[in-house]
Amino acid sequence: MRKIEVGLLGLGNVGSGVMKLLSDNALAIRARLGIQIVVKRVLVREADKPRLVEVPRSLLCTDVNQILDDPHIAIVVELIGGEDTARDFTLAAFGKKKHVVTANKAMLAVHGEEIFDSAERQGVDIYYEASVAGGVPLLRALREGLASDRIDEVMGIVNGTSNFILSKMADETRPYADILAEAQAAGYAETDPTLDVEGGDAAHKLSILVSLCFGKMLSQSQIYREGITHIAPIDFRMAEQWGYVIKPLVLARADETSIEARVHPAMIPKSWMLAGVSGVYNAVVVSSYALGSSMYYGRGAGMMPTAVAVVSDIIEVARDVLSHSAGTLPMRLQRSFPRERAVRDPGDFECRFYLRFTAPDRFGVAAEITGALGEHGVPLAEVSQLGRGENGKPVHVIVRTFPARERNVMAALELLSRSTNATEPPRLLRIFE
Amino acid sequence: MRKIEVGLLGLGNVGSGVMKLLSDNALAIRARLGIQIVVKRVLVREADKPRLVEVPRSLLCTDVNQILDDPHIAIVVELIGGEDTARDFTLAAFGKKKHVVTANKAMLAVHGEEIFDSAERQGVDIYYEASVAGGVPLLRALREGLASDRIDEVMGIVNGTSNFILSKMADETRPYADILAEAQAAGYAETDPTLDVEGGDAAHKLSILVSLCFGKMLSQSQIYREGITHIAPIDFRMAEQWGYVIKPLVLARADETSIEARVHPAMIPKSWMLAGVSGVYNAVVVSSYALGSSMYYGRGAGMMPTAVAVVSDIIEVARDVLSHSAGTLPMRLQRSFPRERAVRDPGDFECRFYLRFTAPDRFGVAAEITGALGEHGVPLAEVSQLGRGENGKPVHVIVRTFPARERNVMAALELLSRSTNATEPPRLLRIFE
Repeated sequence: MRKIEVGLLGLGNVGSGVMKLLSDNALAIRARLGIQIVVKRVLVREADKPRLVEVPRSLLCTDVNQILDDPHIAIVVELIGGEDTARDFTLAAFGKKKHVVTANKAMLAVHGEEIFDSAERQGVDIYYEASVAGGVPLLRALREGLASDRIDEVMGIVNGTSNFILSKMADETRPYADILAEAQAAGYAETDPTLDVEGGDAAHKLSILVSLCFGKMLSQSQIYREGITHIAPIDFRMAEQWGYVIKPLVLARADETSIEARVHPAMIPKSWMLAGVSGVYNAVVVSSYALGSSMYYGRGAGMMPTAVAVVSDIIEVARDVLSHSAGTLPMRLQRSFPRERAVRDPGDFECRFYLRFTAPDRFGVAAEITGALGEHGVPLAEVSQLGRGENGKPVHVIVRTFPARERNVMAALELLSRSTNATEPPRLLRIFE
Repeated sequence: MRKIEVGLLGLGNVGSGVMKLLSDNALAIRARLGIQIVVKRVLVREADKPRLVEVPRSLLCTDVNQILDDPHIAIVVELIGGEDTARDFTLAAFGKKKHVVTANKAMLAVHGEEIFDSAERQGVDIYYEASVAGGVPLLRALREGLASDRIDEVMGIVNGTSNFILSKMADETRPYADILAEAQAAGYAETDPTLDVEGGDAAHKLSILVSLCFGKMLSQSQIYREGITHIAPIDFRMAEQWGYVIKPLVLARADETSIEARVHPAMIPKSWMLAGVSGVYNAVVVSSYALGSSMYYGRGAGMMPTAVAVVSDIIEVARDVLSHSAGTLPMRLQRSFPRERAVRDPGDFECRFYLRFTAPDRFGVAAEITGALGEHGVPLAEVSQLGRGENGKPVHVIVRTFPARERNVMAALELLSRSTNATEPPRLLRIFE
């Protein structure tokens, strides 16, 4: 065999990066692999559109069957995104005994069980390094580097847009809406930023991490999720004062009987390695039985970083094909765990909380807040009112709790949100220490 | 095949960790691999010594041939350390078509060329993830995760002992000798700490990184090396004042025609991710063409962290054996680079320098220092004398330069070290920004 032929589905940002990387590093890749990787055909929506990279017109096709029906194409690289069409094409590729490389976290999070089962049944590879933390070889680390270890927890920053926004809010103490508008103008945030800022994208990635670390495919509704849209400049000032930074986190952990998976921002100590992860960078800290803490850090998005992961996956599939070992590995890790672990009620979660209330500056407000928290068994570490509210202007009352059950905090906030004193719903951030 | 049999050479700290991890995670490993990994025989010096882990007496042997001559043993795990006997056993194992997993950086740094050539000739695997950064799957990331990318630079902290000492000196502003003694008492430094504190261990690891990143086996003399023994509390105070921390670094970079590899401490900005890597932790930052900066962080030493890497390597070899693909991969990366790159003269290196002079507090000292530096074309950013020296007591004169050639700085220091004013040789630290 002198070459391995690849069919690309999609020629957007990442697809163009893949074309460019395969061509820029062609000699080195060929030397490493002993054979050549050739893109034989590229599925596009419109053949005559201008492109980010030059691709011969003859490679382009608008009918996926020109790729699926080509017996010489061994690897299909799925880069069209979205959940359903991508799933259909992926399953169809498996049906033709083609291996698939994908960067599509949404597809894997939603249809993962079906996709992995099908790959196993057909005896083909599915690699998806680019789906979490972009070019950082994190999934490889979990699958192979820590294959001998038992992972207990993963915590990380996996959404570059949220991290960019929160980093900039911290640096410039300007409101969320301003920074979001800037991020959109700079191309760091989508026109509809919902998936990024409400935690949906992070939840997709977390479910892939959970499947590799704990062998369970969670549905999206089993992942507790809060976005970053309510965070205000005052929250950064309080964090700074206490020695924390605010980061958009994912967190999953498991013990023998249960598992929990959460997506939300939190205050973390400045001394943590994750606190230094700024801008569009991603990082994931893995805690495992024998190794302890390890961290994987780098660019989680972007044309070329994502292309690194996709092309490294293509190389890995090519190696598997050459050694006739394809179709055996990726799902193994998952199969090695007991399946019966229950998903923990998010209300059981325990940590310190930061609470922000907004109310007119009048007697009785502090008593109402501390009363409601006390009634629900939330122990208070610190209560402070920030300045005086003149002429009836509302003020912030800030509370820091000792470790408390999330359920109790939520119940107290629910009560307080209905208070006639509240001029804005109470806000909370978890504090990790 | 229902099991793969392993022969262990050495049952010290790491060997015991390997036995423990294989037994603690036996079920999970078996589930992941589909077969069992069985330690069939363990080479020890004395069969009747007390052990860190319980190993049946019948497994122990004192003659390596009981392992080498056993046709059922597929994988030899070399954990005896040292350069020469380890090399002999490794080559002998290859001769018997056995795959080798090793944690031995000294052996690979000194005999790497011979060992990799022999493995290739015999068609067997050699894996050595534990040799750099302990349990952190860094070599896997370089070999597979970044297989599609072009690495331009690696910079990192790979010696836990040095990092522990410098971290503690920074926190407690006590002299080197005190902290070293404490580290020795706590088991973080050897009785003879030379290999760690003079950079020899880091140089071994750097040569392995260089071989993977740039495809060249450097001899130890081709790696420029300085230790941490001359660093004093005052250096940390100056670093703090300027917003730097002092870290024991390795640095290697290459362009199309040349390569450089260096081991020495340096001042780095507090804002760098590496600045947050404290105590016995290791971290390596990789700069590559398409991905940009990525970082790999975790425990670089210790019984269980090292065992994670060794056992993950055993699992990987076992997979290769099962898929009949063994003996093809590890050296590939190396073969894919041009071999003719020259090793750069360390004197060509350019950065800012921090210089510390110790001399009596008298007129003419500053003039002599600035004169010598000026004469050698070293541009000065800042010169300061720290306090007055009363009763002839020597004082520190501190210089921070603008970016200067190392060769010129060295020549000026050589001249100044012979000055009758110098009560202590001048000291330097490089400043990376």
